Amino acid sequence: MKVSVIGATGYAGAELLRILNNHPAAEVVHITSESHAGEPISDIYPHLKGIYDQKLISMKEIDMIGKDSDFVFIGLPHGHAMTVGKALENTPCRIIDLGADYRFDDTSVYEAWYKVEHTHKDAPRVYGLAELYRDRIKNAKIIGNAGCYTTASILALAPLAKNHLIDVDTIVIDAKSGVSGAGRSAKQANHFPELYDSFKAYGVATHRHTPEIEQAIADLSGEKTVLNFTPHLVPMSRGILSSCYAKLKPGVAAEQVTEAFEEMYGDEYFIRLLGLGGYPATKNVRGSNFCDLGWHVDPRTGRVIVLSVIDNLVKGAAGQAVQNFNIAAGLDEKTGLTMAPMYP
Amino acid sequence: MKVSVIGATGYAGAELLRILNNHPAAEVVHITSESHAGEPISDIYPHLKGIYDQKLISMKEIDMIGKDSDFVFIGLPHGHAMTVGKALENTPCRIIDLGADYRFDDTSVYEAWYKVEHTHKDAPRVYGLAELYRDRIKNAKIIGNAGCYTTASILALAPLAKNHLIDVDTIVIDAKSGVSGAGRSAKQANHFPELYDSFKAYGVATHRHTPEIEQAIADLSGEKTVLNFTPHLVPMSRGILSSCYAKLKPGVAAEQVTEAFEEMYGDEYFIRLLGLGGYPATKNVRGSNFCDLGWHVDPRTGRVIVLSVIDNLVKGAAGQAVQNFNIAAGLDEKTGLTMAPMYP
Amino acid sequence: MKVSVIGATGYAGAELLRILNNHPAAEVVHITSESHAGEPISDIYPHLKGIYDQKLISMKEIDMIGKDSDFVFIGLPHGHAMTVGKALENTPCRIIDLGADYRFDDTSVYEAWYKVEHTHKDAPRVYGLAELYRDRIKNAKIIGNAGCYTTASILALAPLAKNHLIDVDTIVIDAKSGVSGAGRSAKQANHFPELYDSFKAYGVATHRHTPEIEQAIADLSGEKTVLNFTPHLVPMSRGILSSCYAKLKPGVAAEQVTEAFEEMYGDEYFIRLLGLGGYPATKNVRGSNFCDLGWHVDPRTGRVIVLSVIDNLVKGAAGQAVQNFNIAAGLDEKTGLTMAPMYP
Amino acid sequence: MKVSVIGATGYAGAELLRILNNHPAAEVVHITSESHAGEPISDIYPHLKGIYDQKLISMKEIDMIGKDSDFVFIGLPHGHAMTVGKALENTPCRIIDLGADYRFDDTSVYEAWYKVEHTHKDAPRVYGLAELYRDRIKNAKIIGNAGCYTTASILALAPLAKNHLIDVDTIVIDAKSGVSGAGRSAKQANHFPELYDSFKAYGVATHRHTPEIEQAIADLSGEKTVLNFTPHLVPMSRGILSSCYAKLKPGVAAEQVTEAFEEMYGDEYFIRLLGLGGYPATKNVRGSNFCDLGWHVDPRTGRVIVLSVIDNLVKGAAGQAVQNFNIAAGLDEKTGLTMAPMYP
Repeated sequence: MKVSVIGATGYAGAELLRILNNHPAAEVVHITSESHAGEPISDIYPHLKGIYDQKLISMKEIDMIGKDSDFVFIGLPHGHAMTVGKALENTPCRIIDLGADYRFDDTSVYEAWYKVEHTHKDAPRVYGLAELYRDRIKNAKIIGNAGCYTTASILALAPLAKNHLIDVDTIVIDAKSGVSGAGRSAKQANHFPELYDSFKAYGVATHRHTPEIEQAIADLSGEKTVLNFTPHLVPMSRGILSSCYAKLKPGVAAEQVTEAFEEMYGDEYFIRLLGLGGYPATKNVRGSNFCDLGWHVDPRTGRVIVLSVIDNLVKGAAGQAVQNFNIAAGLDEKTGLTMAPMYP
Repeated sequence: MKVSVIGATGYAGAELLRILNNHPAAEVVHITSESHAGEPISDIYPHLKGIYDQKLISMKEIDMIGKDSDFVFIGLPHGHAMTVGKALENTPCRIIDLGADYRFDDTSVYEAWYKVEHTHKDAPRVYGLAELYRDRIKNAKIIGNAGCYTTASILALAPLAKNHLIDVDTIVIDAKSGVSGAGRSAKQANHFPELYDSFKAYGVATHRHTPEIEQAIADLSGEKTVLNFTPHLVPMSRGILSSCYAKLKPGVAAEQVTEAFEEMYGDEYFIRLLGLGGYPATKNVRGSNFCDLGWHVDPRTGRVIVLSVIDNLVKGAAGQAVQNFNIAAGLDEKTGLTMAPMYP
Repeated sequence: MKVSVIGATGYAGAELLRILNNHPAAEVVHITSESHAGEPISDIYPHLKGIYDQKLISMKEIDMIGKDSDFVFIGLPHGHAMTVGKALENTPCRIIDLGADYRFDDTSVYEAWYKVEHTHKDAPRVYGLAELYRDRIKNAKIIGNAGCYTTASILALAPLAKNHLIDVDTIVIDAKSGVSGAGRSAKQANHFPELYDSFKAYGVATHRHTPEIEQAIADLSGEKTVLNFTPHLVPMSRGILSSCYAKLKPGVAAEQVTEAFEEMYGDEYFIRLLGLGGYPATKNVRGSNFCDLGWHVDPRTGRVIVLSVIDNLVKGAAGQAVQNFNIAAGLDEKTGLTMAPMYP
Repeated sequence: MKVSVIGATGYAGAELLRILNNHPAAEVVHITSESHAGEPISDIYPHLKGIYDQKLISMKEIDMIGKDSDFVFIGLPHGHAMTVGKALENTPCRIIDLGADYRFDDTSVYEAWYKVEHTHKDAPRVYGLAELYRDRIKNAKIIGNAGCYTTASILALAPLAKNHLIDVDTIVIDAKSGVSGAGRSAKQANHFPELYDSFKAYGVATHRHTPEIEQAIADLSGEKTVLNFTPHLVPMSRGILSSCYAKLKPGVAAEQVTEAFEEMYGDEYFIRLLGLGGYPATKNVRGSNFCDLGWHVDPRTGRVIVLSVIDNLVKGAAGQAVQNFNIAAGLDEKTGLTMAPMYP
């Protein structure tokens, strides 16, 4: 399979190259960057020296890219993938977008939260969270790869929502991410000394991953869902932990919670169940495509607390994209994704 | 004022020495350690070289310590302060315990959560959270200094609980602490490479600071309170951020929330109000006795989210102890505590 | 004493405010910033909220600043302090420049390394390293505060150079600094995820602190000195460690090395001697004005290795500036500088 | 090829499992631990859950292990591999020891630095630094895998020593390592808050990697070599940077230095030459088997400064062991080792 990466110089793009490097069935043909077109990617990312030394080109060459590629991965800021999607509309080239443009069934939700007009409303798209929507992904033209916080949060809550074990209007998601989630652009707020030995929240009640989580929980539970999602910045590079709280419906026992997780994920390679009382740590999934889950039931308050960890750049971005690619390309879903987490 | 520190080699004890070093009205007469008795404290903590080089003694010499001291600070693991408290019962020496032994009105709650028999049930004690219980602290014989997570969490929720703006049974507290909060003893779990670039939760639904927060919220609101408190470990040294969630009672507006904070804390030196929409960061209070608060109201879900940060070793331990000492000794409450946060 | 800070929004400027906050004999009258003039400093540095909330003004108001101040601290990039120095030339206001403009006896050395014309060659200036040049500092009009790497390195080598115990042409200085030394401006290279869990060198054989160290060693030893100085970036906020290597002159014993350190620094409050075989750690001086020194003699190679640590923003910048201020103002040298290091 | 890992619960052992997991020609048959025999490795290292869940056995079963394995990797503290080596002496099983027992030609050097009697002096062994001793490794019975600091340092200096471009008695090596290099055992000194935001040296003039580097430089240059090697601890998990200083012999030009590197390493896959003026960073090799090299010539002092980075657990331990295994097993040297570095 020939693949190209549009927007290869962000962290997700670079991570995609790291993963594709060991993928036996994918060959990277083009990589693009508008600000670095003409430069070898290894000048921008010296860790890729000797691995990928090819030159970046401009995405203005989208026609050529489309012709040369079976699949195109897009790692652009939101609002830009739509242009690529439309340009490749009538080609056989399939698309996996790591951004938000193709994640929403209802584009008015996208427009309300992202403050951008959606210009590709009728795009033939599916939501790219493999464990939940594997069947739809198989033949999709465009896959809207799930976001990082959302992947961790939805996988944590899906068994409970689907089995109607919780009141969806009591959901509170308190999530924490390493700084790579904020992208590669240097900003004052993410300057090293500003964040080191510091911890803070951001985007309270306004973060754009909120409606994406709500969409999935509503889809699974069949109930309209509004919830609180609060992201925080951890002074580390990689990893997301989502702490998800909800009231159990009256009479729901801890065993039912455990059963719901085991039934839904028992056969999933990338989901590792740490069980009732389990404590996942982001380091245990770092560099891998795993999502580790542990759950707790508090008899005093009647709440269930689910803890979920992923590597935001792998299962939360590039790894999930390759997993979706494998499904869409008819390959074994694990192809190129069996690397063990890097510890310590 | 002559003061002594029982258990000076823990992080809170060392921090107490750092703060007392610049306190104009306190002289440190004795410092104790059972494992290092006979050694100069600066051998254990080289950062104190030239500042405190005096030798540690054993707390077996409690009679002498009591005689020589106006105040004794205790930095021992829970269960041990009671012994000291009883030994000094009939002396004029007053006690500020940084541990949990004297924090609970109802010692059966202490016994249930700490799995230790309380042997000093009738101790003349007050809960040492100065902003809430200043008047009681003034003349107390024994002050049970508030815990680190609890200080951050109670200060965040107090204005809301006291003014009946929230449903107390919807409270969820998701808290995050730097590793110094786990103490100075080396453990596998806190070995540097295990925690670096990692994030995890612990003590879900079972952490001992839970009943301490519930006690204060119940006291303020007049309602029995059970809540969820979840601590997490951040790969950094110092700082706690508490993210507190609760449903606002019907009809409560954002302005009322703001008013409650301003009314309660407007004159407090150590509480800095960042206002509606404010984002405190732990680094902004590092090394200082400040508690920074920001609050958010989500009209979609009807929840208020309060963010609270402190330095766990200062306002969460040694600084608060000195604040309590100042009150009890009849000094200006800010004495020795006006150091600016250390940034970056 | 009335003092002002020109360029208060860099890290050294902010640190100066932290230290001056607890200085009993200094009152901050003006603080300047060109990019933030008109804004309260606590908007730029929220950690100063409630401590310094005054507004920044432009340094265009230098005449007023000069009139209102006994001392002016300058925290500007190199090349800009000269303008301030000339503007205040004929006023009684004295100057402590934290930058490089006034550090060199021979301005042609400055011009060669800094690639800037020196426009204030005849400035009445002294080199501001208190332990070595205390007497000259007393009455100086302009004090060129020593640099961060240079302070750590010169203090490490001074006793050996002065007592002719080493061959100065064998000196190799391998220094390591936390990222705050690179300043507050956001740059791609210092973006949090780029540096976290990474270590690298920079400025090999070209760093501008090289000639400053050479000037001091030549002055102390009476021998022309060229040496290698290599800075490295440590993924932490604060602290410098300088590892200094030199061949001992034939027959020099370890005892003589120790004697040289004790003789030169035995009475210095801010220099703590860890002795032969001592291992200083940057954390033990963090937030304080101390310089900790340990030295090692290797009989196999005939080299002495001196290890030196300081807090780059305190003894390497703002603390040293206040120390120089105390000397110049006729105060006790330790005034406002006795804060204990912050550990852990 | 069937392989076993003796001492699988140290960091190097766990890293070996991470790498072997993606090795197409190696099957892990036994893994041992004395303290955790009987437990699944994934209980000790949860990041391996679903990848390696097999149980640890005791190395008392060395006969069975030897019979079942073509190769045995040893990840034990020094002094213990000799026992394994002798036990497998008369079996066809070959050995790759990650410790120091088999690294020295002259066992009296080992005994002098490691303070242990060498009980396997006549062992048929080779020094396992593939780029230098590839030919000897091919048919070796026992391979003494090069150490972490030594690999970085020797590779940096080898082209200069071999081509007689430097005076070997002027060599100074200032090296810095992440904390994983100190092993997995919890110690007070490596407790998270003790090291965070701190930097220090250790083992000055006494570190055991010194004679190992001297052995290689002497072997390459043909000159007896004593040098200074100083290790430092960086507050990060992984990575070593070695800054190597030496005086160039009179008349040696920068071009000759560059030629020496290109000639020696031009065809080496795992050595990436960043050239004259190059600045390697540990993050660029993290998780990979690469060694990145940059060199600088200072005309002022006549010194060459070589900067060298590796991942201490990969090229400095487990990766190098697999590289040696590939050579010894007749496989392509890169097999299972082409994973890209993990960035950021």
